[in-house]
Amino acid sequence: MPSLPDVMTPDVEKLAADQADARDKSDAAPAVMPHRDALFEWLLRTGDNALILGHRVSEWCGLAPVLEEDIALANQALDLIGQCQLWLEYAGEIEGAGRTADNLAYLRDAGAFRNLLLVERPNGDFGNTLMRQFLFDVFHLELLTAARDSGDARVAEIAAKAWKEAAYHLERSADLVVRLGDGTAESHERMQNALNGLWSYTGEMFTDDLHDVALADAGIVPLPSSLRAPWERTVAQVLEEATLKHPGAVWQQGVSGMGGGKRGVHSEHLGFILAQMQFLQRAYPGARW
Amino acid sequence: MPSLPDVMTPDVEKLAADQADARDKSDAAPAVMPHRDALFEWLLRTGDNALILGHRVSEWCGLAPVLEEDIALANQALDLIGQCQLWLEYAGEIEGAGRTADNLAYLRDAGAFRNLLLVERPNGDFGNTLMRQFLFDVFHLELLTAARDSGDARVAEIAAKAWKEAAYHLERSADLVVRLGDGTAESHERMQNALNGLWSYTGEMFTDDLHDVALADAGIVPLPSSLRAPWERTVAQVLEEATLKHPGAVWQQGVSGMGGGKRGVHSEHLGFILAQMQFLQRAYPGARW
Repeated sequence: MPSLPDVMTPDVEKLAADQADARDKSDAAPAVMPHRDALFEWLLRTGDNALILGHRVSEWCGLAPVLEEDIALANQALDLIGQCQLWLEYAGEIEGAGRTADNLAYLRDAGAFRNLLLVERPNGDFGNTLMRQFLFDVFHLELLTAARDSGDARVAEIAAKAWKEAAYHLERSADLVVRLGDGTAESHERMQNALNGLWSYTGEMFTDDLHDVALADAGIVPLPSSLRAPWERTVAQVLEEATLKHPGAVWQQGVSGMGGGKRGVHSEHLGFILAQMQFLQRAYPGARW
Repeated sequence: MPSLPDVMTPDVEKLAADQADARDKSDAAPAVMPHRDALFEWLLRTGDNALILGHRVSEWCGLAPVLEEDIALANQALDLIGQCQLWLEYAGEIEGAGRTADNLAYLRDAGAFRNLLLVERPNGDFGNTLMRQFLFDVFHLELLTAARDSGDARVAEIAAKAWKEAAYHLERSADLVVRLGDGTAESHERMQNALNGLWSYTGEMFTDDLHDVALADAGIVPLPSSLRAPWERTVAQVLEEATLKHPGAVWQQGVSGMGGGKRGVHSEHLGFILAQMQFLQRAYPGARW
């Protein structure tokens, strides 16, 4: 078992207790899957990233600067929400408590969400939305590339489907980051500001906790920290081409102490996202048409 | 019975049908009150104006430009939400279906709200918030002045209580409109922009419909249109002192056709307000502590 970074130490006892607690409560667990709790967490994390980023991107619908971008962003939102549906559906099955993807998306409160802080950041201007997308896309593609080879057949299958979409998202966001970074003085400044503002939210993508260790040990997905080097390489290369200044080593959100979206400790923004996203199911529970 | 403006004519049949329908459905109505439906509508309109404006003003909490203003705005929000509680509580009693003020505030969807479009306008900058407040305060004080003499004792009692708060709100907002309008070049420009942007939402305050006519006939409150002249006088006087240009006669929102917040046809903003405002009761129905 790989050693955990020091900063994660405070979590260990609580996580072990939570896992034991969850095991006790769940009689409907699949037969033999020692990493069941960890997989459930990972599916929530992966599905919630897609759901919350998808929601954020969907906020641009009808408001993007040009029609072409409006349609592209709406399609990207649909891709992400479609991926979320597959991940959360599997999460519900793994949990074995009868929750559907819809239940998980619309009936959990903020503290039960597991998405990264990065994807709940407000859209800001178009440049900020693109930079957030780019920073996530590079991580997302590395993650899905690894998950395509998962020892869990269902994870591998969903990852393979999502990979194609994520590859296209990255192609697009990297291209636009370069065009706008290496564009006019104003577009350059906006992209640099976006990069500086978002950078402290990138570290959380590569934190490892006990769930991650359990999944790496079981051959489901590698440790998040193992994705950092390839992520850094791609990001550095694109930033250089975009003539943007790498922010360097700065303090990172959610990587130490007990915080971070992966652990359910979110910024104020998530509550507002959920209030809007969940309104219909909260106001009209079980509504169908 | 006063003649109705032409623009209201399309409503007449529908309103009469709605009223008959509501009467049929409600067996728990107070003994003899021919204007019961109209009073219920008016209480919703008056309570919803206070609730939605109170919510909007509360959005400034912790974000106002100076501490003094932050506290003043928070207090004003509390005044308005307190008034809303009294109006909606009475509305629930008049309706006779067992709904409390909380039920009415937190469990109605947008189409059942009766507030003016003006009060659901976004806050914008501090100047815009103040201008919205001023335009409403002048109307509010005229309305409450009249309602203090209502033939309905409960309306008169609530209006008398609310009047003191509204008088202070107007004193404050008029003072600040003058100081900022007749202030720096930038503050003047912001106030003028706010005035121009909000002006088309003022006409709805003075529209009369069948409910209003029924209440005027019953001696409960005078027709909204009767408040226009004193409103115009006060507004013109303050704008002049503030060196702001009166926008003159422009097309008005919600006064013709079937639209307008009083009739439950709202802008997109109300849905977002309700999603946030109602989240707790929607997510945790009947929650108590």
